[in-house]
Amino acid sequence: MTKIRKIQLNEREMPTQWYNIQADMPNPLLPLLHPATKEPVGPSDLEPLFPLALIKQEMSTERYIDIPDQVLDLYRLYRPTPLHRAYNLEKMLDSPAKIYYKNESVSPPGSHKPNTAIPQAYYNYKQGVKKMTTETGAGQWGSALSFATNFFGIECKVFMVKVSFHQKPYRKTMMNLWNGQVIASPSEQTNAGRMFLAEDPDCPGSLGVAISEAIEVAAMNEDTKYSLGSVLNHVLLHQTIIGLESLKQLEMTGDFPDLVIGPFGGGSNFGGLAFPFLRYNFSDGKQTRCIAVESASCPKLTRGKFEYDFGDTAGMTPLIPMYTLGHKFIPPSIHAGGLRYHGAGAIVSQLLKDKLVEARSVEQADSFRAAMMFSRAEGMIPAPETAHAIAQVITEALTAREEGVAKTILFNFSGHGLLDMGAYEEYLEKDK
Amino acid sequence: MTKIRKIQLNEREMPTQWYNIQADMPNPLLPLLHPATKEPVGPSDLEPLFPLALIKQEMSTERYIDIPDQVLDLYRLYRPTPLHRAYNLEKMLDSPAKIYYKNESVSPPGSHKPNTAIPQAYYNYKQGVKKMTTETGAGQWGSALSFATNFFGIECKVFMVKVSFHQKPYRKTMMNLWNGQVIASPSEQTNAGRMFLAEDPDCPGSLGVAISEAIEVAAMNEDTKYSLGSVLNHVLLHQTIIGLESLKQLEMTGDFPDLVIGPFGGGSNFGGLAFPFLRYNFSDGKQTRCIAVESASCPKLTRGKFEYDFGDTAGMTPLIPMYTLGHKFIPPSIHAGGLRYHGAGAIVSQLLKDKLVEARSVEQADSFRAAMMFSRAEGMIPAPETAHAIAQVITEALTAREEGVAKTILFNFSGHGLLDMGAYEEYLEKDK
Repeated sequence: MTKIRKIQLNEREMPTQWYNIQADMPNPLLPLLHPATKEPVGPSDLEPLFPLALIKQEMSTERYIDIPDQVLDLYRLYRPTPLHRAYNLEKMLDSPAKIYYKNESVSPPGSHKPNTAIPQAYYNYKQGVKKMTTETGAGQWGSALSFATNFFGIECKVFMVKVSFHQKPYRKTMMNLWNGQVIASPSEQTNAGRMFLAEDPDCPGSLGVAISEAIEVAAMNEDTKYSLGSVLNHVLLHQTIIGLESLKQLEMTGDFPDLVIGPFGGGSNFGGLAFPFLRYNFSDGKQTRCIAVESASCPKLTRGKFEYDFGDTAGMTPLIPMYTLGHKFIPPSIHAGGLRYHGAGAIVSQLLKDKLVEARSVEQADSFRAAMMFSRAEGMIPAPETAHAIAQVITEALTAREEGVAKTILFNFSGHGLLDMGAYEEYLEKDK
Repeated sequence: MTKIRKIQLNEREMPTQWYNIQADMPNPLLPLLHPATKEPVGPSDLEPLFPLALIKQEMSTERYIDIPDQVLDLYRLYRPTPLHRAYNLEKMLDSPAKIYYKNESVSPPGSHKPNTAIPQAYYNYKQGVKKMTTETGAGQWGSALSFATNFFGIECKVFMVKVSFHQKPYRKTMMNLWNGQVIASPSEQTNAGRMFLAEDPDCPGSLGVAISEAIEVAAMNEDTKYSLGSVLNHVLLHQTIIGLESLKQLEMTGDFPDLVIGPFGGGSNFGGLAFPFLRYNFSDGKQTRCIAVESASCPKLTRGKFEYDFGDTAGMTPLIPMYTLGHKFIPPSIHAGGLRYHGAGAIVSQLLKDKLVEARSVEQADSFRAAMMFSRAEGMIPAPETAHAIAQVITEALTAREEGVAKTILFNFSGHGLLDMGAYEEYLEKDK
């Protein structure tokens, strides 16, 4: 029998609603708190930063939320994305495990990030917003928001973590190509940026620092809203299109995952894939293990504390109930810029606290070793963030071999590494 | 009604044979000539360079040739590729034209090139070949052959045109990642390379020069064969999978193209898409216009002569009956490295001579302008080679608007430009 390597949905089979896990969580989320009053934050507190539709989604407990037609239409530029069976990798590992990966790298910016960038740009556009600011680590999120805002004629200003700005120059060009404006963070353009530079003129930056800068610009300018690429509930909501499509695609194979694995920065990559499967753990008594894989250099889930902390470094956001290394933590300059975030977002933190999901950390060298193996087996070259998930997949597939169990493993191939070749070059040089 | 933006085939619908246009050409090809004797070349003359199966395909006039199972299996790593309808571009141009593009950029090396790299590596492997050499311009072909040989445990040595080697450093890393070895050409490793360096130590190289080096290594080493990424008949044959899939996909839309457009370097990009449609011109009386788009800096089709010429610069290949600028022509250092070739391959040359296909040339600046427009409309960022086809598509769509005719245009989105962002950066700077 011929091996079917890719499972494709056609556009008519694409889901038309997002799945909101807040409807099904055994323990509801603790509220966000106002940093000054320590009182729960209400919708009006968030209005300077976000359009109303997104604030409503942030707090919604409706199980399914309709995807607007215009968003569906733009999703179709690259969705539905293929689900691949990694036969070559299975063979290379001599594992009885079935390994599937959902290929989110086929979007024009090269990652899963446009899944939320498009609806965020859309809801801002509907509310008449003309300018948006955001932060970006490795550049995947900034590219995605530039790509999305460009369709709606919204100006986009991206604060890019300085170390990544220099490591990945092609990302800046990509954002410029889609009319995005890119500033290395910390910058001289904001009070927060000037403060960090005064403390340390060589500060490599971090997602937390860049968030402070982007929020400050939005808070100070009436015509400008802020956009976040992960962490928040509405962002994770939009990303569930990944898991919802994967569910349909796996149904076509007859398999159901024993393990769902995603890289973890702020939660949208992992949550987007895992939540639609977790739902069956809550409702059907299924026992899919969902594993979030973080960088060992930034181990908030495995070594952080669950407590109220700021989402940014300067302390401008509401207090979020989450696993955190402390908002002042500046992670080492690893290549997986998307994982360099001190916190974890409320939903995944609550699920981890309740032992409904698991977390693992992976060293950078192991992630590159896994990425090389995957590239040689399957062809596709993963982003450094994605490589962390692959390292864990390989560990699990080898465990399956030891145990002689034909587990089904699904992971999020969240982005390609074509704009991260500098990192690979460095790794290949070291490995000689 | 919802717009369907992408037409997907499933793996079972993928063609299992290539189409050989030699079976249907009104005038058969003139023979290749031996450079010393000027006698027609026989299979044995080519045996030092190619495995027998490929020599047989080179000379075959069978209409359909079976694709081996192992090749089909590796094709499935990225094939069938999607066919997109470029609604946003149509709207931006306010044109009644229907614009479709076949997206070959989804392969791991990012272009159509693996369609022939995989079978070439396969046939060499079947014959027990352990090492292969080749040339590459912008790096797309060298990446594809490294990707393909890696699956078969064949060592791959790539002579990369020096100017591209420096313009596109990430391509080298990509080849290394797939175990390819990359040498900037002209190099000190061959007689041909040393000769060109003696004439001009700053020689930027060209495809013709790099071919001379790669052929020399293969000719001098018994365990080594040579592989070419375009020009030859068997290469164009393998690429017809592009047009054959497109035919099936367009059938699902009810449209048939009035115009088929592809970038032109040596012929495999254009021919791979166009030949299966041309067949209907020969047999069904259809009148699809097929347009090959070359760089105005290297205008062999529009300004060259049809004559016997060498395929390489040093004069080591058989004499090929083709449109050429002369084998000593070294094209200017444009970014579209894949179009920097003095000749045109025998099949497309004969078809052009017989007025069965058309040719146009495009200036680099116009190609980048077109690429920017396309990237902003459809998201996907094209390779500089692909951008040449897009410039022509835009011209034709605007003509359709003037004429008020709803033409159907199909073009080959042969590769993405994610490893060419340096070229875009330069263009954006100039454009400021």
